[in-house]
Amino acid sequence: MHKHAIEVRVYYEDTDAGGVVYYANYLKYTERARTEYLRSLGFDVHEHHRAGHFFVVSRVEVKYKRPAVLGDLIEVTCELLEMRAASMTINHRILRGQELLVEAQVTLVHTDSSMRPVRMPEALRQQLTS
Amino acid sequence: MHKHAIEVRVYYEDTDAGGVVYYANYLKYTERARTEYLRSLGFDVHEHHRAGHFFVVSRVEVKYKRPAVLGDLIEVTCELLEMRAASMTINHRILRGQELLVEAQVTLVHTDSSMRPVRMPEALRQQLTS
Amino acid sequence: MHKHAIEVRVYYEDTDAGGVVYYANYLKYTERARTEYLRSLGFDVHEHHRAGHFFVVSRVEVKYKRPAVLGDLIEVTCELLEMRAASMTINHRILRGQELLVEAQVTLVHTDSSMRPVRMPEALRQQLTS
Amino acid sequence: MHKHAIEVRVYYEDTDAGGVVYYANYLKYTERARTEYLRSLGFDVHEHHRAGHFFVVSRVEVKYKRPAVLGDLIEVTCELLEMRAASMTINHRILRGQELLVEAQVTLVHTDSSMRPVRMPEALRQQLTS
Repeated sequence: MHKHAIEVRVYYEDTDAGGVVYYANYLKYTERARTEYLRSLGFDVHEHHRAGHFFVVSRVEVKYKRPAVLGDLIEVTCELLEMRAASMTINHRILRGQELLVEAQVTLVHTDSSMRPVRMPEALRQQLTS
Repeated sequence: MHKHAIEVRVYYEDTDAGGVVYYANYLKYTERARTEYLRSLGFDVHEHHRAGHFFVVSRVEVKYKRPAVLGDLIEVTCELLEMRAASMTINHRILRGQELLVEAQVTLVHTDSSMRPVRMPEALRQQLTS
Repeated sequence: MHKHAIEVRVYYEDTDAGGVVYYANYLKYTERARTEYLRSLGFDVHEHHRAGHFFVVSRVEVKYKRPAVLGDLIEVTCELLEMRAASMTINHRILRGQELLVEAQVTLVHTDSSMRPVRMPEALRQQLTS
Repeated sequence: MHKHAIEVRVYYEDTDAGGVVYYANYLKYTERARTEYLRSLGFDVHEHHRAGHFFVVSRVEVKYKRPAVLGDLIEVTCELLEMRAASMTINHRILRGQELLVEAQVTLVHTDSSMRPVRMPEALRQQLTS
C-alpha cells in the first residue's frame, strides 16, 4: 500500500495555553497530509471540490500519546488502510523524529455536491491500489 | 448610534502557548458580536448568505492593549461608526469588567455572490441609523 | 449518570469551503460543553489549570452523520460514560433539534503540570458519580 | 531593508462557508512568515519563547483586496518597516502570482515573561538592520 509523509512546523496558532498543540488541530495536520498524498498521486482534491465532488469525513479515531509543542518540526504520514467503492480509510502517524506522538484513522466518503456517496474516480482508485 | 454587546468565554481553543488569546482569534469574537448585533436589529447574516449576499471584510485595525487569558468572561461590544451605501465600519471594544483589552475597527462591504459591492438592504440601513 | 448540554451557534469561523462545519471544529464544541458541564458541578477547569493540573485528551472517536451548517443553533450534550482514578470518558451528542449530527467519545486523563497522571480531585469524583 | 517570503497552500481549515480564506486566518499566515523570516536571520522565536521572552502583537492593520480560495498557493512576504528598542513593525503582502490579495502591517513588542517591554536582542537588531 502507498505511504506518504509531509513535514509540519508547529506555530503559535496551533498551540493552546497548555503549551502543546490543541487536540483538534492535529486533524488539520492530517488533512494537509491527505491532500498532499492525493496530490502526489496526481489527484487534486481542491479542483475536485470545484468540480462538485467532495471527500467528507465520516469517522475519526485519534490516540494522543505525547504532545507536540511550539516549534516542533513533525512528520505526518498517510497510509491507505482500506478502500471501498465510495470510501477509504487512511491511517496517519504524527512523529517527532522516531517518537510517535499521535495516531489517527480517518474514514472519508466520496460524495457529490448533495452529499450523496458516489464511486471514487477510477484513476484515483487505480493509483491508490497500484 | 446603536450599541450592542455579547459575552464570550475564553476556552483552550482560543489560547496559545503564550497563555493568552491568540491575536487572530479576537477577530472571531468580533464577528460573533457583529452577527448578534445585526440579529438584534432583525437581520440574519446567515440567511442573507444563503440568499447570495455577503458582508465581506475590507479592512481591519486592531489595537491590543492587554491580553485575555484562559477562563476569562469578556464582553465584546459593537458600535456603528460609519455607514455608506454598500459598506459600514463598526468599532468593537473587548473588555474584562471595566478593563479595555482590545479595540478593533472593522469595515465590511455588502456584496452579491460575485463579490461585487451592492447597496445594503433598506430595512437594515434604517435599523442601523434609527 | 449526569447529563448536561450547551447551545452553540455556528459562525463563519466554524465553517469551511464545503459550506459545513469543518470536521475538527466539532471537537472545539465538545470541549466547550465539557468545560460548562464541569462548571455546572462546581468545578472550574481553568482555575484548575492555573493551579497546575490539566485534563489531557488521550483518545477521541467521532462519528459524523450529518453536517451542521452556517447559522445553525445546535445542542452539544455531555454524558459521563466511565470514570477511573485518573481518567474519564465522556460521550457527546451534537444535535440540531431532534436530529443527531455528530457523536463523539472523548477520554481525558487528569495530570499534573509534568503531564503525569494523577487521581482526580475527590470533590469532582463525587459530583460526577452522585 | 530585509525582505523574505514563504509559500502557503490554502487548505479547507483556512476557508469558510463563503468559499474564501476566513479573514482572521490571514494573520496566521503572517505569523508563519514572520517566524520563518526571523529564522532565516538565525533567530528562533520558539526557543526565545522557551527562554521566557515573547514577541507580543500590539497593533495590526489589514487591507483585504481580493480573497484567496481553496487550493491557492500564495506567497506571504515580510519587510521590516520600522525598528525601535523594544518593538518592530513588519509589512506583509500576500500574493497569488503577481496579484496582491492582502496587505498587513503588524507591530510587535518584545517582552519578558511578565509582558514588560524589553530591548530586543542585539544580535537580532543587527541582523534586522544589516
